[in-house]
Amino acid sequence: MIDIKINDELSLNKENFMVIAGPCSVEDREQIVGVAKSLKKIGVNVLRGGAYKPRTCPDSFQGLGEEGLKLLVKAREETGMAIITEVMDTETLPLVEEYADIIQIGSRNSQNFSLLKAVSKYDKPIVLKRGFGNTIGELISATKYLSMNGNNKIILVERGIRTFETTTRFTLDVSAVPVLHEKTEYPVIIDPSHPAGVNRYVEPLAMAGTAAGSDGLMIEVHPEPENALSDSAQQLTIPQFQDLYKKVKMIAQINNKNVI
Amino acid sequence: MIDIKINDELSLNKENFMVIAGPCSVEDREQIVGVAKSLKKIGVNVLRGGAYKPRTCPDSFQGLGEEGLKLLVKAREETGMAIITEVMDTETLPLVEEYADIIQIGSRNSQNFSLLKAVSKYDKPIVLKRGFGNTIGELISATKYLSMNGNNKIILVERGIRTFETTTRFTLDVSAVPVLHEKTEYPVIIDPSHPAGVNRYVEPLAMAGTAAGSDGLMIEVHPEPENALSDSAQQLTIPQFQDLYKKVKMIAQINNKNVI
Amino acid sequence: MIDIKINDELSLNKENFMVIAGPCSVEDREQIVGVAKSLKKIGVNVLRGGAYKPRTCPDSFQGLGEEGLKLLVKAREETGMAIITEVMDTETLPLVEEYADIIQIGSRNSQNFSLLKAVSKYDKPIVLKRGFGNTIGELISATKYLSMNGNNKIILVERGIRTFETTTRFTLDVSAVPVLHEKTEYPVIIDPSHPAGVNRYVEPLAMAGTAAGSDGLMIEVHPEPENALSDSAQQLTIPQFQDLYKKVKMIAQINNKNVI
Amino acid sequence: MIDIKINDELSLNKENFMVIAGPCSVEDREQIVGVAKSLKKIGVNVLRGGAYKPRTCPDSFQGLGEEGLKLLVKAREETGMAIITEVMDTETLPLVEEYADIIQIGSRNSQNFSLLKAVSKYDKPIVLKRGFGNTIGELISATKYLSMNGNNKIILVERGIRTFETTTRFTLDVSAVPVLHEKTEYPVIIDPSHPAGVNRYVEPLAMAGTAAGSDGLMIEVHPEPENALSDSAQQLTIPQFQDLYKKVKMIAQINNKNVI
Repeated sequence: MIDIKINDELSLNKENFMVIAGPCSVEDREQIVGVAKSLKKIGVNVLRGGAYKPRTCPDSFQGLGEEGLKLLVKAREETGMAIITEVMDTETLPLVEEYADIIQIGSRNSQNFSLLKAVSKYDKPIVLKRGFGNTIGELISATKYLSMNGNNKIILVERGIRTFETTTRFTLDVSAVPVLHEKTEYPVIIDPSHPAGVNRYVEPLAMAGTAAGSDGLMIEVHPEPENALSDSAQQLTIPQFQDLYKKVKMIAQINNKNVI
Repeated sequence: MIDIKINDELSLNKENFMVIAGPCSVEDREQIVGVAKSLKKIGVNVLRGGAYKPRTCPDSFQGLGEEGLKLLVKAREETGMAIITEVMDTETLPLVEEYADIIQIGSRNSQNFSLLKAVSKYDKPIVLKRGFGNTIGELISATKYLSMNGNNKIILVERGIRTFETTTRFTLDVSAVPVLHEKTEYPVIIDPSHPAGVNRYVEPLAMAGTAAGSDGLMIEVHPEPENALSDSAQQLTIPQFQDLYKKVKMIAQINNKNVI
Repeated sequence: MIDIKINDELSLNKENFMVIAGPCSVEDREQIVGVAKSLKKIGVNVLRGGAYKPRTCPDSFQGLGEEGLKLLVKAREETGMAIITEVMDTETLPLVEEYADIIQIGSRNSQNFSLLKAVSKYDKPIVLKRGFGNTIGELISATKYLSMNGNNKIILVERGIRTFETTTRFTLDVSAVPVLHEKTEYPVIIDPSHPAGVNRYVEPLAMAGTAAGSDGLMIEVHPEPENALSDSAQQLTIPQFQDLYKKVKMIAQINNKNVI
Repeated sequence: MIDIKINDELSLNKENFMVIAGPCSVEDREQIVGVAKSLKKIGVNVLRGGAYKPRTCPDSFQGLGEEGLKLLVKAREETGMAIITEVMDTETLPLVEEYADIIQIGSRNSQNFSLLKAVSKYDKPIVLKRGFGNTIGELISATKYLSMNGNNKIILVERGIRTFETTTRFTLDVSAVPVLHEKTEYPVIIDPSHPAGVNRYVEPLAMAGTAAGSDGLMIEVHPEPENALSDSAQQLTIPQFQDLYKKVKMIAQINNKNVI
């Protein structure tokens, strides 16, 4: 497995397990800085938060845009956390790249080849989510677009696939972890929030993904999930996350991984 | 069902059945003009051909780009056919819009919301393919992005979904035709080439889609499929297409539709 | 394709297209004899009706059992139609075999290998439905159990598979028709009722399956669907079926098939 | 969660985690007694082994039948382990019930309602596997057949579902664990062997299932997997199983479960 330097203090490699947490969307200064401080205190070093949101319907909240990016930077300044946020198109890519420490490509853009090519021109760490309709083979092919200009700082995310089962929003494919480890040199992290769909299933999925040998987690946490502007049902509260974090640490240790 | 004017001679509405045919990729002048003339002679009035190609791997043929668009225009000049081609990103959208009569959004971009928003600003007919991992509900939500600025000239395409069955490339969901007709006012056409994956299954799928009540077909036809630069296995030869066209006309008539 | 003799007047082979129709469950004498007479008048020669019903829940109507078989025989006596009914286990197999002209194995028993072996010992025509979670390869393997003692009078049924799409009950895989024709010598018929789930989608699916080259249809028809004891939503009325029958005849003719 | 008494020394309830291990098929006395002794020494108290095998093709090894059941009893006599084996039909059910401590219903018989009804008449613990094409709702409905005569000693098994992903044999749906715990009172165990398909993926899936909160594991272990008469690729060797067992114990402890 390759070694990916996130910032001066943080590297993701086969000995580490990286926890990324934060709200689905950046909503305002108080929300993002507040949640960042709480998470940092628990031990989290990478903050997620969406500024540009890919929403199924055009009348859903579309994110704060550049204002959201600036609020993420505030949170970084106040906590020292690295920040990761999603890029949705080539127009806003230069902005996202300027502000973020890690560029995220979402599930619905996993085969947006024009975007992959554009991102490949930068030298930032990239988080690439598996498209929920994509095979593992297609995910690996997508990494070839990202690395075509020499950047191999790619982190893969399993976030659930489309199946016939409807009691969860998507079906988390935990076997993607060992399969991807066998077929690529990139770290593989688990997003338990999107397959769960509701917050009471997030913990078991997070623990399952960790035990399967993943190299990290990306979890949605919100100070007040019931008032969130997006993905309200599936975000964890701070105390829920704190409980989970403890258990995940113990499981990561069994896999000889150091939580960062 | 709404009435969509394609050009001065061609309209798609509930009384018509529109056949779109042509090669997967525009390869050179001889190929595209040649196939256009053959198709026009059979009765086809809309020519398809890819100039920008969304390919799973970066080392596959990526299309001729603007040169491809210009060759499509040559074919239009020589035959009078309308031309449709796929747009992959907002950068090349103005070019595609300038040259094409119908703008196509491919399956992998079906939830590329930035692209959908950008396309919504033009007033051209749009062909929107269903993402192979998307529900019918998500396809309908995507049309809301396209129509947000008032353009409702949207044609939907069922092109096969991802299932566990592997003897075909995708599983054509023919029930999407009656379901979409019930839930939207947009015409629904069938692409039998991509689910088939091999050319011997294209005819039965094309006939099935027509019989299910679709408003048209979009089929890959190549003068020499074995030498095609992309999708070699699934393109029909001119004689295969001619046979199919006759049968499709008969079935469309049973559904009281006039092939255009 | 093999030639399967159903009774003295009826054979299914590559020149014919066999329509099977009747209620989901046999409910009483008036219902089954009445619907049989109506169907016979329209031109149908094979009557379906369930006496033993595989129901997801134990508190749903489980069928009339032997009484149902006897009522099917009454309908045969009064109309001359061949009768087909489902067998659910080896205990009732001798009874079903005694009364029925065609033995049906349902989707949920498609890989019930003990039942397949038991049925293989008889010499009756068999209708084998594809399990909704089974690949085409597994369906073909199941036929090897049925034919292990020399009976090759096997008719395959595509009745929809499980996919992520939920606007229909199952997704009809029309491509199973050409694929099975290529890989086996058995006739392939379509059941449009179970994938549709609601009666307004039955006609388009029936037409699609016919146009795809199937060798027949098996459709649920009930004199009063709203009062049916099972599958109430998806059964056609007699007039709905009559309309459909006319169109199906026209499509079968395009495929050079004679409706029997 | 209910408390299920397996034998005088063994009970499965919310405080316990039950490991079931053994070969896919009982092959001969040396094999089954040998593997039983090795497993018992490691700490396993329930031995699995197939005497009647549901095989996709009729020319695959179909199991030793009653001879296999008798060999399982020998292994029980020599080790004191409880034994579990699969029943495939009502004919052999009395035999299986006589010899086994736990009756297993396989994935392909998960909706074989005649078999479920017959099993419901006994008072033995039952292991019911989820059909690979069945929803969680259908699995719960199947338990209603099993419990219709008052036996609620039912243990549910998640063993992977059919999805579009083909790098593993099935996709293990770990979310079934919390969902089933929420909707039923039955223990839920994980079979990591069948979804894995190859033995190198068994450990990560077993650990994932354990971490997700399952109440046990059922794993295929063979003294010489490369010579096994069935499922050769996915069975663990004794040393592989021993390694896994240690890690599973640690994870179960994090979930406050005592491995039995």
